[in-house]
Amino acid sequence: MKKDIKDEAYRLLHPKPALLITSISRDGKTNVMSCAWATPVSEEPMLVLICLGKGGYTSELIEQTEEFVINIPTKKLMKAINVCGTKSGREFDKAKLAGLTYKPAKKVKPAIIEECVGHIECKLNRKIDGGECNIFIGEIVAAYADEKIFKEVWRTDADIPLHLGGSHFVFFKK
Amino acid sequence: MKKDIKDEAYRLLHPKPALLITSISRDGKTNVMSCAWATPVSEEPMLVLICLGKGGYTSELIEQTEEFVINIPTKKLMKAINVCGTKSGREFDKAKLAGLTYKPAKKVKPAIIEECVGHIECKLNRKIDGGECNIFIGEIVAAYADEKIFKEVWRTDADIPLHLGGSHFVFFKK
Repeated sequence: MKKDIKDEAYRLLHPKPALLITSISRDGKTNVMSCAWATPVSEEPMLVLICLGKGGYTSELIEQTEEFVINIPTKKLMKAINVCGTKSGREFDKAKLAGLTYKPAKKVKPAIIEECVGHIECKLNRKIDGGECNIFIGEIVAAYADEKIFKEVWRTDADIPLHLGGSHFVFFKK
Repeated sequence: MKKDIKDEAYRLLHPKPALLITSISRDGKTNVMSCAWATPVSEEPMLVLICLGKGGYTSELIEQTEEFVINIPTKKLMKAINVCGTKSGREFDKAKLAGLTYKPAKKVKPAIIEECVGHIECKLNRKIDGGECNIFIGEIVAAYADEKIFKEVWRTDADIPLHLGGSHFVFFKK
């Protein structure tokens, strides 16, 4: 039997990798937040998109400085994912709170998170209105990943947390 | 060590659920294709988006009739996912080829795929240019799922195939 779903309808599109998005303020302070609503868009040109709440600090920073980095964490960073998904960068230095290390990116100003296993550096291509969220389409200007666990695709020992919705996560296997 | 990635950069955002998208022609024929580039966008209003190649038949059909259904398959449908991802609906009746059963949807004209465990019926909200793809933003008008394997979130026995890139798939576990 199939039951009607209302509030949780979007969760049918999960599980989705839990991502850590870094962005930067005009005065050069990187912020980090957790996000799962993302997807590749195009290979030629190389475009990806992320959906972020309109009122949020990261949304504001990307609007201002037009760059962001998508960092891919592993299971080891579950606590950090939780901290970065529940606190606001307006009030806290979340990297400090979460025990994350900022390191310079290759081609954009926001820092990357050293503990993550993959990084996609993006320059803002366009912002689209998406209801309660802004859809930020980014052009990929650099991308790199841990060579032990990414070989053309993620290996199954990558242990990347996949968000199911709410506080539920799973991991993947062959 | 982290290595630079070029062509496979978008795969850092995988694994992503393999989806079967149904759409309909003006003369009432449903078509189905495989797609993994999708994400929720907003809960209020309920928006999702899918990214589909501009030249493809499904893109053309959604432009024409402005409705689509996102169907969520399980591991049992791996062969169908492959067929629907490699053949064109311009030349084939893919449901027949893949052994899939069309059944009327609740609120839109394209059929749903009976063998799937979840369905999100969408009316086109907007089409956005996304490089080689069209980004179709859909407003959810109905959503339902198998009550045995979806309880607020997908249960781990849902056995939903997650696409890693190329011909690589994984499944999820607690």
